[in-house]
Amino acid sequence: MQTLLDGKAVFSEKPIALDLAETERIVQVVRERKVPVQLGFMRRYDPGYAKAKAKIEAGELGKLETFRALSRDTYPPSLEFLLGSGGLFLDMSVHDFDLARFLVGEVDEVCAWGGVLIDERFAQARDADTAFTLLRFKNGVLGVVETSRHSNWGYDIRTEVAGSVGKVVVEAPQKTPLLFAKDFASSHDHYENFPDRFEAGYRLQLEAFFAALREGRTPTPGPEDALETLRLAVAATKSWREKRPVKLSEIGT
Amino acid sequence: MQTLLDGKAVFSEKPIALDLAETERIVQVVRERKVPVQLGFMRRYDPGYAKAKAKIEAGELGKLETFRALSRDTYPPSLEFLLGSGGLFLDMSVHDFDLARFLVGEVDEVCAWGGVLIDERFAQARDADTAFTLLRFKNGVLGVVETSRHSNWGYDIRTEVAGSVGKVVVEAPQKTPLLFAKDFASSHDHYENFPDRFEAGYRLQLEAFFAALREGRTPTPGPEDALETLRLAVAATKSWREKRPVKLSEIGT
Amino acid sequence: MQTLLDGKAVFSEKPIALDLAETERIVQVVRERKVPVQLGFMRRYDPGYAKAKAKIEAGELGKLETFRALSRDTYPPSLEFLLGSGGLFLDMSVHDFDLARFLVGEVDEVCAWGGVLIDERFAQARDADTAFTLLRFKNGVLGVVETSRHSNWGYDIRTEVAGSVGKVVVEAPQKTPLLFAKDFASSHDHYENFPDRFEAGYRLQLEAFFAALREGRTPTPGPEDALETLRLAVAATKSWREKRPVKLSEIGT
Amino acid sequence: MQTLLDGKAVFSEKPIALDLAETERIVQVVRERKVPVQLGFMRRYDPGYAKAKAKIEAGELGKLETFRALSRDTYPPSLEFLLGSGGLFLDMSVHDFDLARFLVGEVDEVCAWGGVLIDERFAQARDADTAFTLLRFKNGVLGVVETSRHSNWGYDIRTEVAGSVGKVVVEAPQKTPLLFAKDFASSHDHYENFPDRFEAGYRLQLEAFFAALREGRTPTPGPEDALETLRLAVAATKSWREKRPVKLSEIGT
Repeated sequence: MQTLLDGKAVFSEKPIALDLAETERIVQVVRERKVPVQLGFMRRYDPGYAKAKAKIEAGELGKLETFRALSRDTYPPSLEFLLGSGGLFLDMSVHDFDLARFLVGEVDEVCAWGGVLIDERFAQARDADTAFTLLRFKNGVLGVVETSRHSNWGYDIRTEVAGSVGKVVVEAPQKTPLLFAKDFASSHDHYENFPDRFEAGYRLQLEAFFAALREGRTPTPGPEDALETLRLAVAATKSWREKRPVKLSEIGT
Repeated sequence: MQTLLDGKAVFSEKPIALDLAETERIVQVVRERKVPVQLGFMRRYDPGYAKAKAKIEAGELGKLETFRALSRDTYPPSLEFLLGSGGLFLDMSVHDFDLARFLVGEVDEVCAWGGVLIDERFAQARDADTAFTLLRFKNGVLGVVETSRHSNWGYDIRTEVAGSVGKVVVEAPQKTPLLFAKDFASSHDHYENFPDRFEAGYRLQLEAFFAALREGRTPTPGPEDALETLRLAVAATKSWREKRPVKLSEIGT
Repeated sequence: MQTLLDGKAVFSEKPIALDLAETERIVQVVRERKVPVQLGFMRRYDPGYAKAKAKIEAGELGKLETFRALSRDTYPPSLEFLLGSGGLFLDMSVHDFDLARFLVGEVDEVCAWGGVLIDERFAQARDADTAFTLLRFKNGVLGVVETSRHSNWGYDIRTEVAGSVGKVVVEAPQKTPLLFAKDFASSHDHYENFPDRFEAGYRLQLEAFFAALREGRTPTPGPEDALETLRLAVAATKSWREKRPVKLSEIGT
Repeated sequence: MQTLLDGKAVFSEKPIALDLAETERIVQVVRERKVPVQLGFMRRYDPGYAKAKAKIEAGELGKLETFRALSRDTYPPSLEFLLGSGGLFLDMSVHDFDLARFLVGEVDEVCAWGGVLIDERFAQARDADTAFTLLRFKNGVLGVVETSRHSNWGYDIRTEVAGSVGKVVVEAPQKTPLLFAKDFASSHDHYENFPDRFEAGYRLQLEAFFAALREGRTPTPGPEDALETLRLAVAATKSWREKRPVKLSEIGT
């Protein structure tokens, strides 16, 4: 691997690996070899999330109090995909866990509840298709991440952070700038899936990656973010399986 | 009439009368007798319009530039009603003309175009069921009033005033605080008709009327407002019939 | 008490009492005496919640999957009020617990996390000012209730229920039908507090109460609803204090 | 010119020329030489307008009744630009006139009112900075186009078409998927200018142009559209200058 990486910069989709040991080994190598690595948490580059982050950092929300995220994928995956996915928390909630760390900070403890409400295939894969994960951040903020494997109304991704002064809600209510009204009602459409919802985020994260390389800056989010977010997902999975709250300090690194 | 009014205060729905001479005569009498009169232009007391007015008066829009109003009634009236209604401009546009005067000021000239697009009964009544009226205000502001006798999507009333600094849009986008989503779309309902859309306005105008009487203030809008607004509606009707712009100064008083 | 109630019908604000034993005793008495009792869970009569309920009952959401509620009161209460309030879950979350039962069904298990993030007075009262309660319903649906004692942006009450086919979101996004735009942004206001947000609900629940009495029907929600909702709040409080999930079956009745 | 065009296809921004004679001459040449020409009316390719058109063509609005368009540019142009622009109607309203033809059909008569409300430079250029143009379509539909050279709240482009059954409103209410709430209000941003608002339209019109060439179809909108839309703008200018309604049949071709 080391030879392969010589002089290269790496843009990696998440996850780097599905277990902590392998992820740590890779993070270790790229650190030692000083390989620039950026992880594909594209939501951080979505203009909505980027502006939310800026407002939080500027203190416009005051002291943070709560974090609230919901992700519903439009189409449930195949059983084959499921079996190699690492499970709901590693494969899906991980995007919201990354946002939690990005917007609020590190997490101290999680408590996850899951269930099979959509499709029995998830039970076969010993996975959940629906889950709620409580988060207690190190700074005292409380939060929840809601995750679902399907949505009959389109890709449904919403995040909010509330503080003593204000709140930010990141939500793309409609895709096409069109309202249609008849029969005493108006309707608008929704985004279909992640490629259309996060089109700008996918583009902007690559622009940021190349800009960082050009200007000699460290790309972000980096492999350490992948590792920390994976620890969160592993803790949530453990909490769900063992039916108890799990401290992040239990998840070795 | 004079005896009848002794010691009375009058709350009158619009119009006071369907022609200027009769309206002037009544205004004259109530002035002489110092009868407190308030006209039922309830939109002025709707919280949206009241707040728009307050912002304009506080200078938050800067120098005013444009006025834009749309009114669509849900259900077209019967032919019987039509024949005694005074026509589209006197019966319907008059509410937007009142708002134009309330929010922007007096009008210098109008140009109205109308047509029969909904129902041939309006042609029988020698009336229009759809109209656009251009307004040139004395302060130079330009505007338009769109009027229609029916709407298949609910009572559709919208007004905006734009200035050098900001704009206000008065619009009640949904009635029930409920969004329903499925099949890649979200929908919400609309107000059905004036009683539900202007429920607050109807209540608040009466509260204001009684408060004015109690406190010895002149109720507003008063009979002079009814007269000026009627002049506007008469001018619009004349402009539509004679196919030419009409100055308000042509409409005697 | 029995004499007092003879021939009376009772409309009671929640809670009937702050502990289960007293609540049960009262429920027992009114049952025996066949006293018509309606509880003031006014949200059930809000047009948004009522329509959501109707859609769920009509099967328009398909098989239910998740419940999500958020309540933020505008102004934190005084320390004096706090000490007699029964705590955050009994005093505030109870409204969302009632909605959970109303919209989804009975709850099997809860897990509540709370914290003091707003004001140290809550710590003095050995109470929380911010909490998240996970819910597992008997029908398998998963949910969360977020509760906060203050909001700097107005009374913030939102509820959603999602199913295999559709979702309902009950949310009153703006109070006044006015949008104000300047400097590349538009803004609208929010409801200030429960009296303005639930004005219709407060009125309609009384109309329903009197209609039920007139027509000889049992008013709803009744005292059993108060009891079941209290059990939920007691379970959540216990879960928060004992830092563990609590089954409703642990909460005696 | 003819030699130059041999074997070429042309994508042209509007206008082809600022006067009818020159525009006609060019249209004549490209027709004779069978040069594929597409005009840069990018709004037609905006997903909102494209979907509105599809709904109208599918009959979802029923019989059309009214057309309503508003365009406010963010920044007023320089005096130098103004003097070579052809004036407000040819330079700005022309986009809404094109939409009027695209969505509703050909226009029979116009009546335009303009004024100088923003900046005296427009008076120097013998131009208007604010205008309302009434439209009477050949199919009887009535409409209005509102045009303004500046907006302090961002690029403000809205279009609606209403019919006997439904209406479409094309409007991009917010740019960034972010809501910020504090002090009893929520706010969101707006598009800044045409490059961000019509980013998709600019891209999609070129994709359509190249697809048409590849597949041997005639690109649309073509030079005849430019000509017809220019006639509308010339008629509106004439109406404004001569203070009278102008029939399109007066505008030679």
